[in-house]
This record gives sequence, C-alpha cells and structure tokens, in this order.
Amino acid sequence: MSAKDCTPAPKFSLNDISQSILDTEYAIRGTIPTRADELQEQLNISPNQLPFKKIIYANIGNPQQLEQEPLTFQRQVLSLVEYPNLVNSKNILVENKIYAPDAIKRAETILNSIGGSVGAYSSSQGILSIRKNVAKCILQRDNDELCCNDEELINETASNIFLTDGATTAVSYILPLFAKDENCGVLLPIPQYPLYTAAVTLQNSKLLPYYLNEDENWSTDPEEIETIIKDAISRNIKPTTLVIINPGNPTGAILSVESITQIINIAAKYGIVIIADEVYQNNIYQDFKFHSFKKILNSLKLQYPKKYDNVQLASLHSISKGVNGECGQRGGYFELLGFSDEIKKIILKLASIDICSVVTGQILVDLMSKPPEKGDYSYKLDQRERNNIQSNLILKSNTLYDLFSRLPGISCQKPQGAMYLFPRLHLTSNMINEAKLNNLEPDEFYCLKLLENTGICTVPGSGFGQKEGTYHVRTTFLPSGIEWIKLWEKFHLEFMNQYK
Amino acid sequence: MSAKDCTPAPKFSLNDISQSILDTEYAIRGTIPTRADELQEQLNISPNQLPFKKIIYANIGNPQQLEQEPLTFQRQVLSLVEYPNLVNSKNILVENKIYAPDAIKRAETILNSIGGSVGAYSSSQGILSIRKNVAKCILQRDNDELCCNDEELINETASNIFLTDGATTAVSYILPLFAKDENCGVLLPIPQYPLYTAAVTLQNSKLLPYYLNEDENWSTDPEEIETIIKDAISRNIKPTTLVIINPGNPTGAILSVESITQIINIAAKYGIVIIADEVYQNNIYQDFKFHSFKKILNSLKLQYPKKYDNVQLASLHSISKGVNGECGQRGGYFELLGFSDEIKKIILKLASIDICSVVTGQILVDLMSKPPEKGDYSYKLDQRERNNIQSNLILKSNTLYDLFSRLPGISCQKPQGAMYLFPRLHLTSNMINEAKLNNLEPDEFYCLKLLENTGICTVPGSGFGQKEGTYHVRTTFLPSGIEWIKLWEKFHLEFMNQYK
Repeated sequence: MSAKDCTPAPKFSLNDISQSILDTEYAIRGTIPTRADELQEQLNISPNQLPFKKIIYANIGNPQQLEQEPLTFQRQVLSLVEYPNLVNSKNILVENKIYAPDAIKRAETILNSIGGSVGAYSSSQGILSIRKNVAKCILQRDNDELCCNDEELINETASNIFLTDGATTAVSYILPLFAKDENCGVLLPIPQYPLYTAAVTLQNSKLLPYYLNEDENWSTDPEEIETIIKDAISRNIKPTTLVIINPGNPTGAILSVESITQIINIAAKYGIVIIADEVYQNNIYQDFKFHSFKKILNSLKLQYPKKYDNVQLASLHSISKGVNGECGQRGGYFELLGFSDEIKKIILKLASIDICSVVTGQILVDLMSKPPEKGDYSYKLDQRERNNIQSNLILKSNTLYDLFSRLPGISCQKPQGAMYLFPRLHLTSNMINEAKLNNLEPDEFYCLKLLENTGICTVPGSGFGQKEGTYHVRTTFLPSGIEWIKLWEKFHLEFMNQYK
Repeated sequence: MSAKDCTPAPKFSLNDISQSILDTEYAIRGTIPTRADELQEQLNISPNQLPFKKIIYANIGNPQQLEQEPLTFQRQVLSLVEYPNLVNSKNILVENKIYAPDAIKRAETILNSIGGSVGAYSSSQGILSIRKNVAKCILQRDNDELCCNDEELINETASNIFLTDGATTAVSYILPLFAKDENCGVLLPIPQYPLYTAAVTLQNSKLLPYYLNEDENWSTDPEEIETIIKDAISRNIKPTTLVIINPGNPTGAILSVESITQIINIAAKYGIVIIADEVYQNNIYQDFKFHSFKKILNSLKLQYPKKYDNVQLASLHSISKGVNGECGQRGGYFELLGFSDEIKKIILKLASIDICSVVTGQILVDLMSKPPEKGDYSYKLDQRERNNIQSNLILKSNTLYDLFSRLPGISCQKPQGAMYLFPRLHLTSNMINEAKLNNLEPDEFYCLKLLENTGICTVPGSGFGQKEGTYHVRTTFLPSGIEWIKLWEKFHLEFMNQYK
C-alpha cells in the first residue's frame, strides 16, 4: 500500500478513551500543583515579577525535596552496591573516613546475597534475604520478641512478604483482584489519599466512602463502616475490600486498639479483605502509639482460636516516609495474611509481569528493616541523624498546628502521626460566592489565592474528599524554617478580611 | 461488635477473582522457570543429587545475572549521586584513581539538575534535563544531525518524552487507554514478548495476532496485518492498537524500511496507534541496521506533507538491554508522536498516580543517552567496555546459532538483533505422544527434559505463541562460556535418539 491509497483516518479523541481512565482523578498533582509549576516557570524567566521568590511545595510528602537529609549509613551502603569496585579500595576509604567499615561490610553481605549486581533482575517477589530481614523487623515491631529468632516463623513470614516499588504498586496488585467489576464495592475513608479513589475508579468498581469523624480527631467509626456495608449489600453491591490508612493521610489520626478490633470483627463477619496502608507507622508524634493490624489480628487469634482464620489482611509499608524519606528511590513491601495459596500465586503472577521492583529500592527496605545496631561503628551517627529528623518533624508539626489553632476562620485537629495537617476552613458566604464566580470549589479558590500570593503550594480538601459543606486544605509540614508559616498567616488574615 | 457475634464469612477463592486476571499468563516466569527454582532449592540442600551443579538461566534477558559487567562510568556516577558527600573527598578519590574526574563532574551536574537528592520524587513525566538529553540522543540516532543543536526542537521533543521504570510501565499507561473494552482489538506479533498478551488480557480486550514469517527470517508481513484488521472490522471489533517489536523478541528479526513504511500507511489508513517496542535498538548484530519508526514516519511526512498527521506512534526504550543491561535498576522512556494534547494529558495523569519512576533509573537513562565523549577522561575505558560486551554477545550468538544449525531435529533463523534465539524443534510423533502422556505441550516437555538433565532453563515457544503444529524454544545466549552449549548438544542428541 502506498501513501496514495491512504485515506487518513481521524486521530483518537477523548471519546475513544476508556471511560474509567477519563473519570480517574489525582489531586496531589492536580490543578494547584500544575499552577505552581507554571508560576515556577515564570520565576525562572523573571524572578522579580511575582510577590514571592520561590514555590514552597507543601502539596506532597517529599521530605528530601525540602530540607530532610538522607541517612548517611543507608546512602553509604547504596553508593557501595552501585559501584562494588570500591571494596577494592576499602583501606583508603576507611582510613580517610570516607566510608564507615560497617557500611562496607553490609554492602558486601548484600552483594553476596543478590548474586553480585544490583543491575540484575531479582526474583519477582523480592530478594529472599531482604524479605527475611523484613520478617524479623515485623516480629520485633509487634513485640513478638520470643519469636524473633524462630527460623521457621521468619521463613513463613518472609514467604508472605512481597517487595515493591512502594505502596502504589501494592495497591495496583491487590485492589483489582477483588474490585473486579461494577458490582464490587471498596470501602474508603473520607478524607483519603487519592490513590485509592483513583485505583477503584480505574477498576470501574463502586466507591463506598465512610466518613472519618473530624470532631473526634478524625477517628474511624466501625459502626459507620458496618452501616455502609449493609447498605451496599441491600443495593446488590458486594463489598469486597476495606481500605484503612493508619496513621491517616491526610488526617494524621492513629486508630485505637478498640477500633482496629471492631474493624477486624466486621471483616471476619462479612468476608472483606482489609488493605491496611501503614506507610506512616514510623511517623508517630507526641505520646501516641501505633498498633499494626497484624498485631491485633494475631492477638485475637490467640484469644479465639479458629474464629479469625478467614480474615484476609494486606499490610503496606514504604521507604518514602518515616526518617528514611527516600521517595525517589521507590521501595516498599506488602505482607499478606490469611490469603489462600491460590490467591497468593495470582498476586505473584501479577508481580512477575512487572518482573521485579527496583533492586536498590529493595536494598533500602533491607536497611530500613535492619539499621545499625548498638556497638556498630555507624550506630551513634545513625541514631543522632534519626533523632534530629524526628524532633525536627515534631517541631514543625507543632508550629503549624499552633498557627491554625490561633487564626480566625480555620480550625485544626492535633496530628498524631504522618506528615500532614488537614485544617478546616470556615469560609463566609462571600468567599464561597467569589469562588463560584471563579468556577472553583471554595477550598480550591483558597489554595489558589494562597499559592498566587505566597508561593505556598497545598492541595484543596476536595481532592481527598470531605463532608459536603465543609472545606479543608492539606499541607505537609515539611518545608524548612518558619518564614513560610509567617507568610501563610499574613495571607490568611488578609483573605479573611477581604471576604468578611 | 464482639467476636461472639461474628459468624465468619468464607475466604475468597478463585471464583471471587477478576476473570481477566485469572486468564492472564506470563511464561517467562512460568512453569519451567518455577521448576528451575525448585531444582535450585534441591541443589542448595544437596549439591550432588542432580545430574548438574547449577541452573543456567537462559530463560530471561538478564545480562548482569550472568557474566555481563556494568559500565564503569555509569556506575561511578550512580555511586556518587547516591552519596553526594563523596564530592567533598574529590581530591583523594581522583588521586587514588578510585573515581574518574569526569564521573564526579557528571554527578555534580545531575545532582544540581534534580535539586540535590535522588531520594526526592521527581516530576511525574521525568526530570526535564534528562528528557532533553534523551531528545538529543534520538535526534542523533535518526541522523537529524542538523537539528541536534536546535534548542526549540530539543524542547519540543523532550515534551513528548516520558521517563518510566522500563517498557512494562510504558505499556501499562498506553495500552489500556485504547484497548478499553472487549470491542477493541490489539494487533500483536506471534511469537511475541508475553507482556503484550498479558496486558491485553488484563484489559479484557481482543487479541488480534499476526504471524511472523519464520521461513523469511521471522519477517513482518504488512499485508497479513491489513487482512487481520479487515477481518476484525468485519466482526465488529475495532482494531485500535498495533504492537511492533523491533528488533524482535523472541525472534531477533529487524524490520526493513519497506515493512515499516507499509505498516505506517496501514496505521494512517485505519487510524491505529502504533506501539513500537524498540528496546533492543542497540542490540544489532552482523551487518544489519536498525531503523526507528520515528525516522521513517518523519521522512514520510517530509515527502507527503499533511498525509501522515494522523499517525499516532509511541516508541519504547529501556536501560535493561543493549550494552547497559541494567535490568534491576528499572529505567526507560517512551516518546509520543502525533497524539493530541488532551490524550497526552491523560497519560500524564496516569503517570502522576504512580508519582514518578525511580530517580536512579532516570539517571541511567541520562547516562545511556549521553555517554562519555571523545576527549573525556573516561572515554577510552568506556569504549573498550562497550566493544567487549558487544563482541562477546555476537560471539555467543554465533556459537549457539552454529549449534542449532548443525544439530538434527532443530532449525534456527540467524538472529539480526536482540538477545535471543528462537529455534524450531522438529519433533517426532513419539515425542509428541510422550509429552501428551505427561500432560505437557511438546515444547514444554522438551524444555523440562533439557532443564532436568542439564540445568539449562529456557522457555517453551508456546509461551510466546507459534503457528499451530510448530514447536520452539526461546533461549538467551547470555550464559557465560561454551560448556553449557556442549551440555545442550549432548542432551539434544540423546533426546532425539530416545524418541526416534
């Protein structure tokens, strides 16, 4: 066929595209961050034409984009595994204090266990020696001290762990299995991290939102969850999956043992898979305590043998949060509990199609799970760095919380964990009307004005979901210094004044 | 609700799982590789109980699992960006020849362009400075020498490039857009890399296989493609997407300029998106030449202005293949040509949900696109390493091809590119019956016997698709040495003898 014969067909338009893809939304990189990128472009061209000199990215939990430094020990090991020839210069490197001796030793151990190169595909489930270290870390976390040296238990636990490129990958394997069509429903907290609404919409399944209780520090109400399950069933929708984010994103709330217990009971009663997004398990502030779903489930199983054998739980973790903050390195894991072998095989098949997660990300999961121990050369420095990061996060969280507590027209629950504040905006009808005139949601309007006046980039609550008639802003407290907080205060007071 | 109230619902079984996920297959890590893992376990426990001492993994193109060394310059840069403090010890490192000075300089340039840390999320489309280097590399590849310094053209090209975790991610963004339901069809070469059948099956769309011509060195026949399109249309299936793998996996065939031209004409006539999987573009052997779809499309556009404006092409590339072989580091890109802005925005939205591809993988894409140049400190070593890898691959390819050419009961087309041979097995009815008795496909039976007798792990042709009544084996030629080739020869002769 030559070009002459060729009567060109039209290009594809949005009409040709999968409807579920069109319907999918992801606010974290939505309109406000997109506008921020445009303003950044303007600043690059003419730095003095805007009322601010730089964009302050508070829209995304990306610690190392801002001021958080990576942990030295972790990065020394990564540097060594990327260029194993360095080990040949071990003496010079140690004498000149360029690398710590225990970092070199750890790198050698890792390289031996992966066959010598981070450039080779690993097994699709993830490197076995790393999964074993994760298993030990989980057993320790849940105070299963007696079991930490039980080789059989470690092996069994490791067999249920899948290393991934982060929590997003975990969700992309597990959620579509059970949210198979428009007759299946997925229970999601509102507000929630928009990955979940996106994943459910892509699957063309039903969103079954349950609202978190803002007045009680964004607590989760198991009774409301059960009501929604019953309602769905009455509408011939099968609720197959329940997502819990603990600690909460964007709320920062931590679930109580009682709530977790009741949620597990509900899952057992209705046969619903629990996806426990526990990626902020190491971002715990004040005197709060994190309890893993696994720990509570195991203690229930001890109390009531056989009663909970049907509970199917997937727990997600990541290297992106906590003191690691290694977002760009993409690593994480999920642990499966109570799933049948045939279903685990299907999940492995899905992982196989992606071949494997990035090996350096897997190594960071190893380093997160097994940091330097007391007596190790790097222990003191590592501890100092961790404590600095942690106290810095608490300080920034408190400073921002204090601001929102004393400003008019805004209220905020005290965060217990995670990296975000989700203050509520009490907007006047003037403000709401002005937003409508601009064809924007009221909180989107606030975020846009905040951005255009101060350079502070946040995400409107509408991107995470909120009760109708309420308006929120999600902000991280990661940006450095307190100057930006003062900018926000000044803007807010002027804004409130303008639309009294 | 307490445990007493709780009447446990049953666990999920395969009946509860999405049918399209159940139907999906992925042979590269299928039955034969799974059996290989079991045998490896046996070897770990008792190394002398099997007729071989180790598994030879020829089932997957994983160069660094075998003997291929990574490129020194690339790994030095990666090591430095993982631990930027090293730059403070620049003098000691250079004096002791631990790092090359140009590697340090390149690492500094990269760190500056990404804001200082590989641990931060990048933009979802990928780091702009890296996309610009990719753009220049593409322009050079297609002999667009005049344009290589045209800043506007580079920027425009970069705006159409998306950095990914590899070709798999690219497929997962593009294919579901147009293969939206069971009324859409995707044209796939047979044999093909099973990622594509898996992706289409997951989407619940129709597979429209077109057979490659084994007798003519696995050539692609545009007429057959058009016949299949017409047939699909007559069955009310809309062919939306056409996958081309060039150089071919598993065939090693390279498409001619004529075939590419005709395929583009067909795409223009019927309005079909072309996905050109060009990940083996740098694995070219003998005197063959690779022509990118983009280059041919651009030359057609010059010849016939406006005639090809409707052609929508996505070209895929990866760091996993070629002389890089950095499979475990997960990096790649795709370039979009002819897509409308609204569709590009949708693809960016999908990329945003994953937030970003691993930053070190993006950096490897940068290093692949812009290697050391003449006059640079690392140039000579880098060239030597590249030449060694390349000549080693050609040698191994030829040795294995020669074996298959002289053995009875097997025939093989000469590979022109990629990393694989796909010899045809001429099996006797005795062999076929024996396979049936074992409940196996005949080529699966051959691969299993090969594995169990020699430790050589390959993939049966049935995993890639083949004409009915023909049987093949896909093998990489990556394992080191020629001992394994001798083992294969010995096995094959005995096997042929046994089932005469």
